[in-house]
Amino acid sequence: MSRPRFFVPDARPGAAAIALPAEEAHHLRHVLRLTVGADVAVFDGRGREWDARVTGVGPSDAVTVELVGEIPPATEPTVRVTLGIGILKGDQMNAVVRDATMLGVATVAPFVSAYVSVPSRVWKGDAVRARWRRIAIASAKQCRRAIVPEIAVATPFADLVRAPFDERLICVEPSSSDATTAFRLPPRPATALVLIGPEGGWAPEELEVARQSGATRLRCGPRTLRAETAPMVVLSALWTVWGW
Amino acid sequence: MSRPRFFVPDARPGAAAIALPAEEAHHLRHVLRLTVGADVAVFDGRGREWDARVTGVGPSDAVTVELVGEIPPATEPTVRVTLGIGILKGDQMNAVVRDATMLGVATVAPFVSAYVSVPSRVWKGDAVRARWRRIAIASAKQCRRAIVPEIAVATPFADLVRAPFDERLICVEPSSSDATTAFRLPPRPATALVLIGPEGGWAPEELEVARQSGATRLRCGPRTLRAETAPMVVLSALWTVWGW
Repeated sequence: MSRPRFFVPDARPGAAAIALPAEEAHHLRHVLRLTVGADVAVFDGRGREWDARVTGVGPSDAVTVELVGEIPPATEPTVRVTLGIGILKGDQMNAVVRDATMLGVATVAPFVSAYVSVPSRVWKGDAVRARWRRIAIASAKQCRRAIVPEIAVATPFADLVRAPFDERLICVEPSSSDATTAFRLPPRPATALVLIGPEGGWAPEELEVARQSGATRLRCGPRTLRAETAPMVVLSALWTVWGW
Repeated sequence: MSRPRFFVPDARPGAAAIALPAEEAHHLRHVLRLTVGADVAVFDGRGREWDARVTGVGPSDAVTVELVGEIPPATEPTVRVTLGIGILKGDQMNAVVRDATMLGVATVAPFVSAYVSVPSRVWKGDAVRARWRRIAIASAKQCRRAIVPEIAVATPFADLVRAPFDERLICVEPSSSDATTAFRLPPRPATALVLIGPEGGWAPEELEVARQSGATRLRCGPRTLRAETAPMVVLSALWTVWGW
């Protein structure tokens, strides 16, 4: 069995006793029912991971661990991909954040575009962003990734598409003309932006802005993909070309 | 806007008035609120599709259409893939059937293996299979596919892995040794079986049976994939190699 993993952003080699964040301590004590002496793994969310041992389980859920030895983290993709996602309904966004974390993106960047139809409470404010971050942390724990992707503040589409990236890909409908299907892409840019529209798709002026900023139009197969599953399909295809 | 699509297994060119199945008639009348004269599309689930017009909306939800002209269906993959899936919980299985339909499989073949942990009511009996078929139909409608994949009767893993296929792929954990990551696969077999285990993974004897039947061990990247999302990741990777 693999060791249970915990997200400990304050993990530092050499520290005597490292405290777990409250949510992680709760998970360790009350969900997994571990106690002093248990072998666990901890990762700092920025790419480092250690075998560790539980050294203290105090009152009010305080849990401390000591690091036993650094271990190699799961490999990260060589391309830093930002997933730009047109904001979807709450549970669909949760699934996108979870799956994009599992599929190795560096950043999830929600955007607002003409056909985003969900109310602003779905995407505005620190509480929403904090929830997406908790989902990303939970997914990183589960998929054994040592990096928690950044959740960017939601921005207008036009700002995101113009941000600096080596490669820009915009996913379009199967019926779109002049889209590339074969991924005739330059091998492995350093950074890439992958843009996936909301359920309503793209407004013509958005496709034009994307064209002007040098985005490649991309289709993934002849069938219409569901908005919340399109990111997984496109990312899997990209890693198959660029290397996992 | 695309025409709304309906699944009409009895659609035949030359027929004067073609009746919609009850569920489709209900969808047309009460969800989409269409009436006589509406332009729709119908597909027979076996690969043919037509533009059609509503010609009759009778009592007790009866709806008839006439075919106006045959239209080219969405392209099907050149490889007939059977997705063998270790049975998961009810809602996860629903998601797998839905997404596998969208990703072009010919057949979904649920199997029972050592670590399948769900009770038999989740997978046994005609009612369960009928529900999976309804999900496949709904997904085919939504993704604009003209073929509804077959839902096979759940079988023991050992029977499925020995069934005749040109290519057998078994998906294993990222930590597995001697698995191929690079998809060094013969280009486009005619038929392929893709085996994805249940949440508990594979028993050693199952991996041995798979080896004996010539299955290639396959990993998709360095992170642990969720059981219900693994099919989508693997199928997307395969189509990227074999062509969508």
